[in-house]
Amino acid sequence: MPVLRPRPLPSSVLLSLVPVASWFIFRPLLDPLPSIPALYSSIGFSIFAFLATIYLVPALGPTFVKARLRGKDLLKYYDKSIPEEELFVPESLGLVAASVYILSLILFIPFAFTMPIREQANVKTAPEGITVSEFPHYQLSVYLSSLLSLLVATILGFLDDVFDIRWRHKLPIPIIASIPLLMVYYAEQGNTNVVVPIPLRFILGKLINLAGPLYYVYMSLLSTFSTNSINILAGINGSEVSQALIIALSVILNDLLYLPWPIGFRIPLHLLGNTTELDFGGVWNAGMSFGSRELVERHLFSLYFMLPLVAVCTGFLYHNWYPARVFPGDTLCYVTGMAFAVVGIQAHFSKTLLLFFMPQIFNFLLSCPQLFGLVPCPRHRVPRFDKDTNLLYPSLAVPLNSDSTTKAFAKTPSKMTTVVVRLFSALKLTETTVDPATGAVVNTTNLTILNFFLLRFGPMNEKRLVKVLISAQLAGSVLAFFIRYALAWLVYDGDRR
Amino acid sequence: MPVLRPRPLPSSVLLSLVPVASWFIFRPLLDPLPSIPALYSSIGFSIFAFLATIYLVPALGPTFVKARLRGKDLLKYYDKSIPEEELFVPESLGLVAASVYILSLILFIPFAFTMPIREQANVKTAPEGITVSEFPHYQLSVYLSSLLSLLVATILGFLDDVFDIRWRHKLPIPIIASIPLLMVYYAEQGNTNVVVPIPLRFILGKLINLAGPLYYVYMSLLSTFSTNSINILAGINGSEVSQALIIALSVILNDLLYLPWPIGFRIPLHLLGNTTELDFGGVWNAGMSFGSRELVERHLFSLYFMLPLVAVCTGFLYHNWYPARVFPGDTLCYVTGMAFAVVGIQAHFSKTLLLFFMPQIFNFLLSCPQLFGLVPCPRHRVPRFDKDTNLLYPSLAVPLNSDSTTKAFAKTPSKMTTVVVRLFSALKLTETTVDPATGAVVNTTNLTILNFFLLRFGPMNEKRLVKVLISAQLAGSVLAFFIRYALAWLVYDGDRR
Repeated sequence: MPVLRPRPLPSSVLLSLVPVASWFIFRPLLDPLPSIPALYSSIGFSIFAFLATIYLVPALGPTFVKARLRGKDLLKYYDKSIPEEELFVPESLGLVAASVYILSLILFIPFAFTMPIREQANVKTAPEGITVSEFPHYQLSVYLSSLLSLLVATILGFLDDVFDIRWRHKLPIPIIASIPLLMVYYAEQGNTNVVVPIPLRFILGKLINLAGPLYYVYMSLLSTFSTNSINILAGINGSEVSQALIIALSVILNDLLYLPWPIGFRIPLHLLGNTTELDFGGVWNAGMSFGSRELVERHLFSLYFMLPLVAVCTGFLYHNWYPARVFPGDTLCYVTGMAFAVVGIQAHFSKTLLLFFMPQIFNFLLSCPQLFGLVPCPRHRVPRFDKDTNLLYPSLAVPLNSDSTTKAFAKTPSKMTTVVVRLFSALKLTETTVDPATGAVVNTTNLTILNFFLLRFGPMNEKRLVKVLISAQLAGSVLAFFIRYALAWLVYDGDRR
Repeated sequence: MPVLRPRPLPSSVLLSLVPVASWFIFRPLLDPLPSIPALYSSIGFSIFAFLATIYLVPALGPTFVKARLRGKDLLKYYDKSIPEEELFVPESLGLVAASVYILSLILFIPFAFTMPIREQANVKTAPEGITVSEFPHYQLSVYLSSLLSLLVATILGFLDDVFDIRWRHKLPIPIIASIPLLMVYYAEQGNTNVVVPIPLRFILGKLINLAGPLYYVYMSLLSTFSTNSINILAGINGSEVSQALIIALSVILNDLLYLPWPIGFRIPLHLLGNTTELDFGGVWNAGMSFGSRELVERHLFSLYFMLPLVAVCTGFLYHNWYPARVFPGDTLCYVTGMAFAVVGIQAHFSKTLLLFFMPQIFNFLLSCPQLFGLVPCPRHRVPRFDKDTNLLYPSLAVPLNSDSTTKAFAKTPSKMTTVVVRLFSALKLTETTVDPATGAVVNTTNLTILNFFLLRFGPMNEKRLVKVLISAQLAGSVLAFFIRYALAWLVYDGDRR
């Protein structure tokens, strides 16, 4: 019996989801027609995507191992008596999740973009309020170009896994994946206006038309950032998938605020010191859409991409949770990152999206000295594992498996490096070792959010560390909603273009 | 110095193509505006695609070898003193050609689908005749869904290379790649009529509406056939790519007949015993389009996919030509096959397309007894290589490297098998070995067109065999044009829907 046998599946519970999913998919054909029929189908496909992922990932694991897509978990200790062959964890299984995700989005096309459904359904009364029974036709191109970008991201992620590209070299790769998005955006003569925050308006005016080149640079930078920022916050079991999962859930929660629910809400913003009441909801008002059918459609578009993403991430996390039975590889980071960029760009809420990336932005800023060569950057920057205590400790910016006396800086570091490292150290973001003789910095911990957690909260085991990361991500999303809906009134007026 | 060093490139000749390609890409911005501006850009992108392929394929070869994507050429003899490591040929390099191909199609999007070009170009006089200065908007979805299918085919082909799926199991895989095509065709409420040949009209009527399911089955079968039929006609240096190249050139020649050339033609069909003169051409008549702008657009659509395909195939063939420095892998077969299916379906000339596949159809029919298990099917069915004479001989339907006395049929074959094998043998399609004692068939040559050539024309070396294959493909295309344009008047009237 291998040590790393797949996690067992509660098959009877899972299979009972099949009729539920089928009902959701075909709900649009039943009377009375709901105001957004395709949303039901999207939920149905998402449930199937979840089932496909949770079953296929362990089933295909051995195939990946056989094709040498496998790795050893560096942060675990196994008895030396166990043969090495049994300790390989299948790697790059994110490819399976990505494939299921994209296939479910492809199969969903007829449900979002054709509308003989209403006629077939023989509906007597049309529902009241804003109804989106089919997307306008031009959106099909936008949807397809998004799928193309996701597919390119999948291919590039998998190539990265197979050919093992050095991670500093692959930072610009997601730009290639954003090309289909940009080309179609251009062909569609898309809106390239960005609403300027109030404090900057006296310089820039109310709307800045990042005309032509600049907006496209902005879009490709967004893809690059969202993809890489998840990829560099990796290294412990479940870290990549749980980040993606929480960001996707946050986007979904945000999208739900813009749909025509049959109930109205009133948020007592005056409790937060705001002068206006936030009154929204109802089938005509459609929440934060304030009656704009276009906003409803944009957020539906986003929902259609996020629901199956949550589904495959959940299915994958089941097998990737500590102790991991499979690794996601770069494929999953690339495809989830690209999915966020797609909805941010196409549904026009890129600034709100970036708010959900606060832990990633923090990690990226923290990593900059290593990314840009001021501080040496080892192949892996994961925390250091101590097999005696089974705890993780902050790792040093020296090659893995070196002992702690190895110096990161072979000679005296440059003035710039010393200033940055000392600043980070003063801000308690890192811990440095100083040569007692010369007073020069000889070493520093790796500049990642995971090491930062270990520095601040002390050594902990891997499972606890991933839970801390999840909590930070959740806290970030709560803060993001507060900034977006309570504070944004200070920097933006009602104009949401 | 390794034995299999990359083929040298005539860099000065190649690099002089860069300004030529650039001129073509930006020709639409110059006055006077041509009647089909985007066609120039397509040619320009194709030249760049050719250059990218011919440079990238040898440059990336070592990376593929390092990632264990490599194989030994089974039909060559090398001195035993050469270390094995130096005899590996990089495998799956078709991935590079496919990526260049798809990227060039993506970058081309703004040129085919946006038309502020005419305004920018400040054109004084519009050209006379049918002009296609931009595609109608709905075609963008069709174009994008085609790209999606090509990308899915690329991924599946590469997965096939990495995971090495047994070839009989992978026959249905291309159906997955055709799903995006089918979904968008459905969402677009595409035309599902097929024009019935005259001899069958008394049964079926003039137009058969392969409504709903049937037409979709037809489309996915076409993708499956075009993909697999190229894939199973493989095994010798240059065979896959040269087939794809000649089919693509034939499709291009056919497309050119439908464009608004500024000259008229008259084909003296009466010499072929036909009653009508074939009078076509001119800027308004547009050749075989007979003035139909829709037909012009369809064949432009096809050209835009075929021109870069010819470019990457030519670039690849340079390195894949005998003795091959790189192997294409399944990726190239999948993506070229899918490209043919895409143009056949989207530009509505699937029957003409199939005429260009005559050698593949012959090879497929010949292979059926092995594909469907009547005759044993070894892992590879390539001809047998004799290192003393350096010639290829027909191989037997037994595992490779077995000697010729091994029996393919362990016990007496079934009646059905015997009938089929004896029939094929009588038609001189195969050669069988008969047990002199019992009179039962004990062996047969592998049922492929390559073995058939070797049986009919005698043993020959690999280079000559691929030339025979190319000649057969060319002859097939000539016959196809004859059937399509001289004989089709017998089975179809003017209705070309």
